[in-house]
Amino acid sequence: MIVVMAKEAAPAELEEVKRRIESHPGLRPQVFDGVERIVVGVLGSIPPDLKDQLELLPGVIEVVPISKPYKLASREFHPDNSRVVVNGVVIGGPEPVIMAGPCSVEDEEQMVSTAKAVKAAGAQILRGGAFKPRSSPYSFRGMGIEGLELLKTAKQETGLPIITEVMAVEDVDTVAQYADILQIGARNMQNYNLLDAVGEIKKPVMVKRGLAASYEEWLLAAEYVMAGGNEQVMLCERGVRGFEQFTRFTMDVAAIPVIQRLSHLPIIADPSHSTGKWYLVTPVALAAVAAGAHGLLIEVHPNPDIAKCDGPQSLTFANFSALMGQVHAVAGVRKVPAQV
Amino acid sequence: MIVVMAKEAAPAELEEVKRRIESHPGLRPQVFDGVERIVVGVLGSIPPDLKDQLELLPGVIEVVPISKPYKLASREFHPDNSRVVVNGVVIGGPEPVIMAGPCSVEDEEQMVSTAKAVKAAGAQILRGGAFKPRSSPYSFRGMGIEGLELLKTAKQETGLPIITEVMAVEDVDTVAQYADILQIGARNMQNYNLLDAVGEIKKPVMVKRGLAASYEEWLLAAEYVMAGGNEQVMLCERGVRGFEQFTRFTMDVAAIPVIQRLSHLPIIADPSHSTGKWYLVTPVALAAVAAGAHGLLIEVHPNPDIAKCDGPQSLTFANFSALMGQVHAVAGVRKVPAQV
Amino acid sequence: MIVVMAKEAAPAELEEVKRRIESHPGLRPQVFDGVERIVVGVLGSIPPDLKDQLELLPGVIEVVPISKPYKLASREFHPDNSRVVVNGVVIGGPEPVIMAGPCSVEDEEQMVSTAKAVKAAGAQILRGGAFKPRSSPYSFRGMGIEGLELLKTAKQETGLPIITEVMAVEDVDTVAQYADILQIGARNMQNYNLLDAVGEIKKPVMVKRGLAASYEEWLLAAEYVMAGGNEQVMLCERGVRGFEQFTRFTMDVAAIPVIQRLSHLPIIADPSHSTGKWYLVTPVALAAVAAGAHGLLIEVHPNPDIAKCDGPQSLTFANFSALMGQVHAVAGVRKVPAQV
Amino acid sequence: MIVVMAKEAAPAELEEVKRRIESHPGLRPQVFDGVERIVVGVLGSIPPDLKDQLELLPGVIEVVPISKPYKLASREFHPDNSRVVVNGVVIGGPEPVIMAGPCSVEDEEQMVSTAKAVKAAGAQILRGGAFKPRSSPYSFRGMGIEGLELLKTAKQETGLPIITEVMAVEDVDTVAQYADILQIGARNMQNYNLLDAVGEIKKPVMVKRGLAASYEEWLLAAEYVMAGGNEQVMLCERGVRGFEQFTRFTMDVAAIPVIQRLSHLPIIADPSHSTGKWYLVTPVALAAVAAGAHGLLIEVHPNPDIAKCDGPQSLTFANFSALMGQVHAVAGVRKVPAQV
Repeated sequence: MIVVMAKEAAPAELEEVKRRIESHPGLRPQVFDGVERIVVGVLGSIPPDLKDQLELLPGVIEVVPISKPYKLASREFHPDNSRVVVNGVVIGGPEPVIMAGPCSVEDEEQMVSTAKAVKAAGAQILRGGAFKPRSSPYSFRGMGIEGLELLKTAKQETGLPIITEVMAVEDVDTVAQYADILQIGARNMQNYNLLDAVGEIKKPVMVKRGLAASYEEWLLAAEYVMAGGNEQVMLCERGVRGFEQFTRFTMDVAAIPVIQRLSHLPIIADPSHSTGKWYLVTPVALAAVAAGAHGLLIEVHPNPDIAKCDGPQSLTFANFSALMGQVHAVAGVRKVPAQV
Repeated sequence: MIVVMAKEAAPAELEEVKRRIESHPGLRPQVFDGVERIVVGVLGSIPPDLKDQLELLPGVIEVVPISKPYKLASREFHPDNSRVVVNGVVIGGPEPVIMAGPCSVEDEEQMVSTAKAVKAAGAQILRGGAFKPRSSPYSFRGMGIEGLELLKTAKQETGLPIITEVMAVEDVDTVAQYADILQIGARNMQNYNLLDAVGEIKKPVMVKRGLAASYEEWLLAAEYVMAGGNEQVMLCERGVRGFEQFTRFTMDVAAIPVIQRLSHLPIIADPSHSTGKWYLVTPVALAAVAAGAHGLLIEVHPNPDIAKCDGPQSLTFANFSALMGQVHAVAGVRKVPAQV
Repeated sequence: MIVVMAKEAAPAELEEVKRRIESHPGLRPQVFDGVERIVVGVLGSIPPDLKDQLELLPGVIEVVPISKPYKLASREFHPDNSRVVVNGVVIGGPEPVIMAGPCSVEDEEQMVSTAKAVKAAGAQILRGGAFKPRSSPYSFRGMGIEGLELLKTAKQETGLPIITEVMAVEDVDTVAQYADILQIGARNMQNYNLLDAVGEIKKPVMVKRGLAASYEEWLLAAEYVMAGGNEQVMLCERGVRGFEQFTRFTMDVAAIPVIQRLSHLPIIADPSHSTGKWYLVTPVALAAVAAGAHGLLIEVHPNPDIAKCDGPQSLTFANFSALMGQVHAVAGVRKVPAQV
Repeated sequence: MIVVMAKEAAPAELEEVKRRIESHPGLRPQVFDGVERIVVGVLGSIPPDLKDQLELLPGVIEVVPISKPYKLASREFHPDNSRVVVNGVVIGGPEPVIMAGPCSVEDEEQMVSTAKAVKAAGAQILRGGAFKPRSSPYSFRGMGIEGLELLKTAKQETGLPIITEVMAVEDVDTVAQYADILQIGARNMQNYNLLDAVGEIKKPVMVKRGLAASYEEWLLAAEYVMAGGNEQVMLCERGVRGFEQFTRFTMDVAAIPVIQRLSHLPIIADPSHSTGKWYLVTPVALAAVAAGAHGLLIEVHPNPDIAKCDGPQSLTFANFSALMGQVHAVAGVRKVPAQV
C-alpha cells in the first residue's frame, strides 16, 4: 500500500503519517520524495482499516493498494521511470548508457588501455571484475582488492565511474569504497543476505537476473535492496538458461519491455554474457537498444585471445567502436516510454 | 559435400558430374545455378575416394566437404544470402519485409479491411489463417477452403501476396493454389511427411521454429524441404518455450544472427506469437529488426477484443501503423550482412 | 459437462438425453457405457440452462460440469482408471505392462530373435519402428510396409501384440492393419490431423508427450483422439527438453502421478528415449514403476553396437532380462491407486 | 591428477609425494586415506612431466589423470561410494536414510511433536529451517538462533541428529554448533564464498542442486567444499526449473543414477520441494528410492494447513508414516551399486 501526499505537505503531516504506520507492530514506512508528490510505502502485512485511517490524515491525497508482491519496485508505486545518476551520468533516461570493459581486471596496462579505448568510443561507465564468480574452484577468481585498486587507477586516468561485482557480505563496504555501482551477479540474485547488505549502503546497485529467475523473483530481489532503504537500483537482463547450448544463455529481449511495464527501475542488457560469442554481441546489443534498454554492459578486451576469462565473448577495441556507432544510430530513432 | 563448378562449365561437364554422383548407390546430386558459379550438392553417405574423383573432372573448380548435418541449408554450401522473391517482393535483402494480417480468417469484411489497412501502413505480404492448429479439439479450427477464398478476395482487392499455413499433406496442393508462401507451423516443424510434401512444390515455404527446437533441428527441418528440391525456403523465429509464463514464449532474438551465421536462408521474426501481449509486440519487433531480421510476421485485427483467436496479441490498425514508422526508422540505420 | 445415468436406464431414456443434446447446434453427445453407470459427455459450448433441462429427464442421476479444458480425458468425467485391453493384456491395471523391442525394424532375424528374447524375459507387447521420425532427411527413415510385414512375422512367431508408430494420415489405415496399438510420436503430438485420423479407428492409441508439451496440451492431444470417438487411449511420458544435455531429455517422473490425478487414462513411461544412455534405463525404469506407471516402453536390440538407430540407449537381451526381474520386484511392493 | 599409493606406504613416502607436489607453485596435495589404498589428489594446473616424476617415487602404485573439471568429487578419483556417517547413521550405504521435519521451525511444541512423530515412523535425521531463504523480503525468514535452539531441544528429546540450512558466511560457525549436517540451499549453490566457508568446517555438508544447474556445475559446487578440505559432502536433487508450472519444479529423477556414475558422493532426493504438492510426494519419493537415492528429505508438519511455509507440500504424520512403509518395501527390493 502507498500513501500519496502533496509535495507541499508540512513536515509534521508527513511525520504523523509515519507515526500512524509505525504504531502498528510489523509495519514500517518508507518515504520517497518525488518531484511532484511525496510517496510513503507501507511495508508489512496491512490491517484492514488502515487505508481508511490514513486517507483522513491532513496532507494525504490518496492511499493506493499495490497488487504486486514487490511493492517499492512496482510501477504502481512509482509511475514515472526512476533515474539513477552516477557522476552525472543519467541511467533511466532516453539515452542508453554504455558500460564497458574487461570481464576481469588483469593488470594496470590492460585496465587503463581498455578504459581509454572504451571512453574514446563513447562508453560512460567502466566495468571490470575484481571478485569473480567461477564455476570451478580451480579457475582464476579475480585479483580482489588489488583489482579494485587498478579500477581506481583507471578511473583516475579517464574519469569513468566504475561498476564492479560484489560477491560477499563481508566485502560490501570495501567494494563500495571503490565502486560507483555495485553489481549483484546472476548467481547471487537470491543470496538474500547479500541483497540485504547492499540495501544498507548509499551506492547504486545493479541486480542481474538469475539464470532461471522469473520476472517476479527478479523484481523481488530488487525489492530486497529497496526494502533496506536503498532506492538506487537498476536491473540487468543477461540471458536465461535454455535448452539451446549454441549460445551460453538465451537472451530474453522481451524482458526489457516487460520490466518497463511492471517496474519503474532502469533496465540494462548484457549481450556479452547472454550470447557467449563475440560475433553475436553487436546484433543482440542493437536489439536490446531497439527494445528500449536504458543501457548496455559490454565486455571489451585489448586482446580477447589471451583474456583470463570470457575471451570468446569479448570485443576488440575496433569492434566495440563500430558497435557504438550503430548503438547511437538505433538509439536516435527509437522511442522509450517514460511512463507505461 | 559440394562440387563447385565454373559458371561457364559446359552442360556436358555438369552432366558428367551428376552421372558420377548417381553411379554410387544412395547418392544424388542437387544443382544450384548461382550467379557466379554452379554448385552441385552431393546428398547421401559419401564414399572416401569420391572427392578425389570429382575434383579431376573438367569444369570442376573445387570439391568442399560440408561439416554440418544440414547441407543445402548451410552457409558453407551457399556463402551469399539467399533471396526469395514473391510477386516482386524480395525476402532476404537489406529491407525487412512485413507480413501482417489477422490470426485467422473470419469473414470478408474483416479480411479486406485488414488487407487494405496493413497495405496502407506499408505491409507487403498478407497473412491469415484458414487452417488453424489449436490445442483443443473444441476450439475454432479455421474456415478451411472458404477461408482460402476470402484470402484470394483480399489479394484481388489489394494486390498483396498471401502467406498462410498448411497443416496436412493432403491439403498441400489446395493451399498452394491460393498461397504465395506456405507456412509450416511450429507444431509441425518435425512433421516430416508434411516437410517432404512441401519440398515437392514450387512455392516458397516458411518454416517456423518448433516450440523447443534446437538451431540444428530447425535447420534440418528446412533441409527436408530443400532436399525435396524446393530451394525457396525461409525460417521464422517465433519464440521457444521457457519457464517464464508472463510471455507466451521466450523470443530468442539471438537466433536471428545465429541463423545468419549458420545458414544462407532468410530469417523472419514473429513478435506476436512469441510475446502473446500486444503491448510487447512493438519493442520486440524493433529488436528483431535491429538484430537483422529479414522480415516480420505481425498479427493485426480490426477489433482485437472480438478476434476469434489471439486477440490479446493482435495490434489495432493504428498501433500497426505506428509500428511501421518505427520499423522503417530502425531498418534505415541497421546494417545486415549479405555474407557472414 | 457430463450426464450420469443409471446403468439400468432404458434405451429410450438414453436416446432422449442424446436427442436433447443434439437439438442444440454445435453440441454433440458421446456415450461411455461403464460398469456401474452410463456417462454421456456433452461436447461443445454449453448453453446456460441445459444443465437444468437434462437433470429433469428420466434415468438421469446427475449432471456435472467439467472444469478442465479436456473433458473426455479428465478424471472428473471418468473417476475410475480406464483400462485398455490388447490381446488379453490389460493396460491400466495393477500390473505394469512391458513393451519392448528395437528402435527400428531392420531384418527378420533381428525382429524375431528380439521378439523371442523379450517374450522369454516377460515382455507382453513387442515394439519396433517401421516408420521412423528422424531429424535429418538423410538418416534411415525406416523400412515402411516391409517393416510392418516383419513385425507381423515376429507376432506370428511369438504371439506378442505389436505397438508401432504412425506418422502420416495416409498411413493410418495400413498401420492399423498390422499394429495392435498405434503410437503417436512426440514430434507429432500436435499434428492435429493425425490425431483426428487415429480418433476414427477402432484400435488403441498411445500418445507420447511432446518435447515441450505441458500436461494440459498433452491431455488435449488425447482429447483430440477421444473426441473422434476412440476411447482406447493411453499416454506415454518420454522426457521433456531441458537445459541439461548429458541425458537426451529430462524424464519428468512426477508426470506419472500428475496424469493419474488429472486423467483416467493409462500412463506409460519410456526410460530409453528420455535418458538416451543404456546404463540409465534400468534405474529410471524402476523409478517410473515405483511412481505408478502402468507400463514401460523399452528399447532392446540383439547387438546395440550395430543398431541402425538409438544404439546407445538400447539394452542387450541380458540387461533387459535383468531389468525385468527388478521391475517385477518393485511392482510387487508398490501401490497404484485405482481412483485418486 | 591423483597419486594412488599402497595402504602400507611408509609415512615418509607419503610426505615425499606431498613435498614434490608442493614444490610446484600453485599445486597442492589433498590426501584421502582409504580402506585399501591412499589417494593423493593433485590440485592445480599440472606441469607436463609431473606424472612421470611422481610415478617413480617409492610407495606409488600409479598416477592417474582425471578428465573431469571436478576432481575430488569425481568417481575417477574415488571409485567406491563415499559414506558420510552422522551419529552412527550411514549415508551412502545400501539403506536409504530419511531426513524429515517441517519446512521451518515455528515453536517448541511443533518441533518436538514432529521430531517424535518422524522418529516413530522411522526417520533417522530431523530437518527444520531456522534461516529461511524467501523470495520476498516481506515473508517470514525464519526464527534464526532461536530456531536453532528449538532444533537442539528436539534433538535432546529424540536423539535425532539435525540437518538445517546455512545461508551466510557469518552464520557458518553458529549453525555448525547446532547442526549435524549443514545444508546449502538451491539458491546458494553458486554462492562461492559460502561454499568456501563450509569447506573449512568439519561437519557434513549437503549441497542442493541449483534451480538451473547442470550436473557439472553442481559437482563443481561440491568440489568447492571438498577443495577446502571438507570431504563429508552429499548432494541433493530437488528439482529443476522447467516450463511446466503444475509442479513447483521438475524432479530430474535421472540425476540420481547420473550422479552415481560421475561421482562417489551420496545422492539424496527432495520430493517435497520438487513437486510442491503433498499428494505427489509419495510417488516421487518412491521413484527416487527405486532409482537408487541414498536418502530422502521430506517435509512433515503437525498441521500443514497452518504451516508458516510450504504447507501445500507438507505431509501429515499419518501420510509420512504410510510413506515410510512403502519406502522400506521398495528399498528392500532395489539394488544400489556400490561401484559403477
